Amino acid sequence: MNSKSNKSALKIREGIEQPSQINRKAAKEYRIHKKNILLPDDYLKEILKGNRSVLSKAITLVESTLAAHQEIAQKIIELCVPYAGNSIRIAVTGIPGVGKSTFIESLGKYLTASGRKVAVLAIDPTSTRTGGSILGDKTRMEELSVDPHAFIRPSPSAGTLGGVARKTRESIILCEAAGFNTIFIETVGVGQSETVAHSMVDFFLLLMIAGAGDELQGIKRGIMEMADAVIINKSDGENKLKAEIAKKEYEKTLKLFRRPPSGWQPIAGTCSALTKEGIPEIWEIISRYYEITKKNGWFDKNRQEQALYSMHEMIKEFLTSNFYNNPKISSLLIEQENALKNNKTTSYLAAQLLIDAYKKEIE
Amino acid sequence: MNSKSNKSALKIREGIEQPSQINRKAAKEYRIHKKNILLPDDYLKEILKGNRSVLSKAITLVESTLAAHQEIAQKIIELCVPYAGNSIRIAVTGIPGVGKSTFIESLGKYLTASGRKVAVLAIDPTSTRTGGSILGDKTRMEELSVDPHAFIRPSPSAGTLGGVARKTRESIILCEAAGFNTIFIETVGVGQSETVAHSMVDFFLLLMIAGAGDELQGIKRGIMEMADAVIINKSDGENKLKAEIAKKEYEKTLKLFRRPPSGWQPIAGTCSALTKEGIPEIWEIISRYYEITKKNGWFDKNRQEQALYSMHEMIKEFLTSNFYNNPKISSLLIEQENALKNNKTTSYLAAQLLIDAYKKEIE
Repeated sequence: MNSKSNKSALKIREGIEQPSQINRKAAKEYRIHKKNILLPDDYLKEILKGNRSVLSKAITLVESTLAAHQEIAQKIIELCVPYAGNSIRIAVTGIPGVGKSTFIESLGKYLTASGRKVAVLAIDPTSTRTGGSILGDKTRMEELSVDPHAFIRPSPSAGTLGGVARKTRESIILCEAAGFNTIFIETVGVGQSETVAHSMVDFFLLLMIAGAGDELQGIKRGIMEMADAVIINKSDGENKLKAEIAKKEYEKTLKLFRRPPSGWQPIAGTCSALTKEGIPEIWEIISRYYEITKKNGWFDKNRQEQALYSMHEMIKEFLTSNFYNNPKISSLLIEQENALKNNKTTSYLAAQLLIDAYKKEIE
Repeated sequence: MNSKSNKSALKIREGIEQPSQINRKAAKEYRIHKKNILLPDDYLKEILKGNRSVLSKAITLVESTLAAHQEIAQKIIELCVPYAGNSIRIAVTGIPGVGKSTFIESLGKYLTASGRKVAVLAIDPTSTRTGGSILGDKTRMEELSVDPHAFIRPSPSAGTLGGVARKTRESIILCEAAGFNTIFIETVGVGQSETVAHSMVDFFLLLMIAGAGDELQGIKRGIMEMADAVIINKSDGENKLKAEIAKKEYEKTLKLFRRPPSGWQPIAGTCSALTKEGIPEIWEIISRYYEITKKNGWFDKNRQEQALYSMHEMIKEFLTSNFYNNPKISSLLIEQENALKNNKTTSYLAAQLLIDAYKKEIE
């Protein structure tokens, strides 16, 4: 995708290594530090150079709810779009305790060692309520977080799932423009966030542990059906045999599902994020998926469909938030909700009344 | 609910049996036949009398896409609302072949024999595509369809799932006003229709057969989690033992789920719709559910929440259909979709552009 644009991005990124530019770079970074907010063009230049600090600031703008920040953010994204897309996007999901962070760290380190650039983002709708967030504690990925070829970004700390989804999608664009060609999206295994993650990645990896049943792991069938690979983590020491048995069971289960439109037969595997056994094999699986789906056209088709889906989701969100944030509607709504509770109206009549009022409001 | 209104409805319904009214009734029915469309007040009167032919015509208006029909339909519903609600609404779901129709016929006959009035409606989003519809072939419920205390209505033959849902919700109101106190909603087991049915019933019954695994029965975990009862049908002859084993398995599975907010522990059972064995016991289960949830407040709370949910769903549907049916938007949409496919824009920018255009349109 965009091989031409990516080549020029590469040139700019390579430029950072030329000795003659070091002083200019230092001067610019000083300026960045001073003014804090740059012009969109300056963000673009720095992002294309792979400047992680500027990338981070741009993502902060994307995540900001301030209109002024959103305006700049959207301009930066627009500028970055032509340089984005050249990556593989991987969702890593599973309930707390299966070792998602350790897994991403192990696989991530393996990839940066082989020359890839790794970005880790997160989707965690629960962070709104708890105030905490996955990846919030950066020390959980101690090695990867100090790796110069990696970029780790905690989950945005607030917002609706739809809002978080949009921000993550836009952060992916920025990371790709910055040269990160392997994007991990970590999600917490609580249902909706998986569906959202699935709508923005190329490869969906479900991480599990052996011994605990499906039920205890809170894994809904629907999530299993989205998986391109089910990986049993913690396959080390005494746990190894159990992991192998679990793998065979999931292999059987996966074969019962209807084959996904990608033409890829989902795979079950084992690994130990701790001992790093099985990690190269998992990358092998993902690479094979990439090759097959690039060849059969699914990879690009899927990304196009994801972009369209995302656009329609945003339209719905815009329409409903415009509606519900209208002050006249807010007060009418309380009235109609009470009428409904007291059986004085029907859902349809109440909805119709509110829509009619809204039409008058926006005229 | 509305015990006062229901008493007066009962009086009107009882009135139909008085000899002095027979001639007036005949005269009115002639008029109904002649004019085909009555005044809303006349619909109300006939519906409250339990006139199934007028009820059927009113539902046809509810299902009609003509604006003029919709207008009358909404007035009829508005008039019926005070007399509605006094019923138990039961979803019966399961994949084709588990015997939903035979089951509803057996349970329905059992109920009409004991003095209850039974209405059967259907939700089948697939009918849009196939042209067919469940319950379309009325002979599938041979006995119930000629029972004077039953009313069977095939699935509306077209429309979006949201549209079908609204029509079914409104048909429930009309059936209840007509004195039907046991409403069955039959759905075909294909995912989304179950969720829609769940959003409008008090009791969710999942019908299954023994021997076929969950996978083969196409039952997703999510549907199992909605069930208030999982009933293994065709528990007769040689199949009986298998059905008992399956029942025990589902009993275990149901206990693993988090207890639903109704405070009701979902139950597994067996029956044979053919031999009618187990049918009274199933009504026993549903009655117990009714008693418990009426007592603990869940029954009424759930209905209120369903009405609110339905109102918000309709608002969303109104907003999006107003948007997508706008001619200016339609052409702009094609343009933006192409831009997205060619990586010339982002989902967010395309959505924003379309929303801005829409705002100008509706001003």
